Amino acid sequence: MTLKLHCFGESGNAYKAALTLELGGLDWTPVFVDFFHGATRTPEFRAINPMGEVPALETPEGVLTQSAVIQDWVAQQSGRFGFHDNDERREILRWQMFDNHKVSGVAGPLRFNMNFLPPEKRSEGANVFLAMRLRAALKVLDAHLEEAEWLALGRPTIADLGMCGYLFYPEPFAFERVQYPAIDAWLGRISALPGWKHPYDLMPGNPSDRQQGGPQ
Amino acid sequence: MTLKLHCFGESGNAYKAALTLELGGLDWTPVFVDFFHGATRTPEFRAINPMGEVPALETPEGVLTQSAVIQDWVAQQSGRFGFHDNDERREILRWQMFDNHKVSGVAGPLRFNMNFLPPEKRSEGANVFLAMRLRAALKVLDAHLEEAEWLALGRPTIADLGMCGYLFYPEPFAFERVQYPAIDAWLGRISALPGWKHPYDLMPGNPSDRQQGGPQ
Repeated sequence: MTLKLHCFGESGNAYKAALTLELGGLDWTPVFVDFFHGATRTPEFRAINPMGEVPALETPEGVLTQSAVIQDWVAQQSGRFGFHDNDERREILRWQMFDNHKVSGVAGPLRFNMNFLPPEKRSEGANVFLAMRLRAALKVLDAHLEEAEWLALGRPTIADLGMCGYLFYPEPFAFERVQYPAIDAWLGRISALPGWKHPYDLMPGNPSDRQQGGPQ
Repeated sequence: MTLKLHCFGESGNAYKAALTLELGGLDWTPVFVDFFHGATRTPEFRAINPMGEVPALETPEGVLTQSAVIQDWVAQQSGRFGFHDNDERREILRWQMFDNHKVSGVAGPLRFNMNFLPPEKRSEGANVFLAMRLRAALKVLDAHLEEAEWLALGRPTIADLGMCGYLFYPEPFAFERVQYPAIDAWLGRISALPGWKHPYDLMPGNPSDRQQGGPQ
């Protein structure tokens, strides 16, 4: 059975799942979710994921949601990028949580506000706050990566494939690789992994598509 | 060895760890972190946790950080509130991630901004944005709890002891139990668990202490 990943190109959280599927070599296909026309708020989508978010992965065992959960399942299926014991599992989890809370959980809304929200709805106060929080977290991340080749273990794991979720996107969101040399080098190591693809090459939908009326 | 939890009363993330330790019946003691006087930014604290956050738990195996990681380890030690297989583990993880990203990850900063930040540093725009996001997440949570007694499984787990992290605090942060009947009832089930304690009774430090010059 081909695994179906409900996703769209602009979603860094969906990218985490897509990249783990792709680099893990599983048989998967993206299903485009028209987020920018309200698809995640429809009853049809809420039946797939009551949390109203991408990504969602259809598997033979049922639907999985939350990118970290999908990554965990995919790693177990592929035997790649996962853990071998509870200590490794918790070290991966530690960085997934930091990412979710302080990096992706801030970069995602900030990038949305700065690029995809209609200008009249943008809040300067909100964006200043988010940018301040993001920079503090990236500083912690950069310091860690000065000492470590990969985030959690001595090899790439789903922690790396998660933390990078928003960091390859070209739109402005208070992050520039040149300002964080260790993050920059680590992103280079990720994009050098065999089979790596940019989010806009791995999932349907991107800003220029939308200007032309959608990807399909 | 008595486990040492670096924490302070106002931290809902530390409360998740403290409550799991307490209800799990482990031998633990809190170590007060004077967050409001900059303790988490000191070299001494960064040596314990380079992420600069509470909670941090000193165990015989080393220091654990990130509340979800501590909860996972404590559940394994105590045999309570944890998982029995990978499916259960991922269902718990799903709600921990939703909490971390959309509930605690928003309620924490919002409560801080509204109550603990000097008035001249408060940003109305940031708080309006955070309150909007929090309410959307609480609506999803309330709908789920209309159908489920406990968040992840048919019994209380670390997902419940995590999601409630900020929801027992009395300070205003755009959350009132009466507006979310299913959340209200679920919080009642948590506080009815034998041995439950309010965050300000479980950890040192609270707003009225600080008005008097600190808890010690």
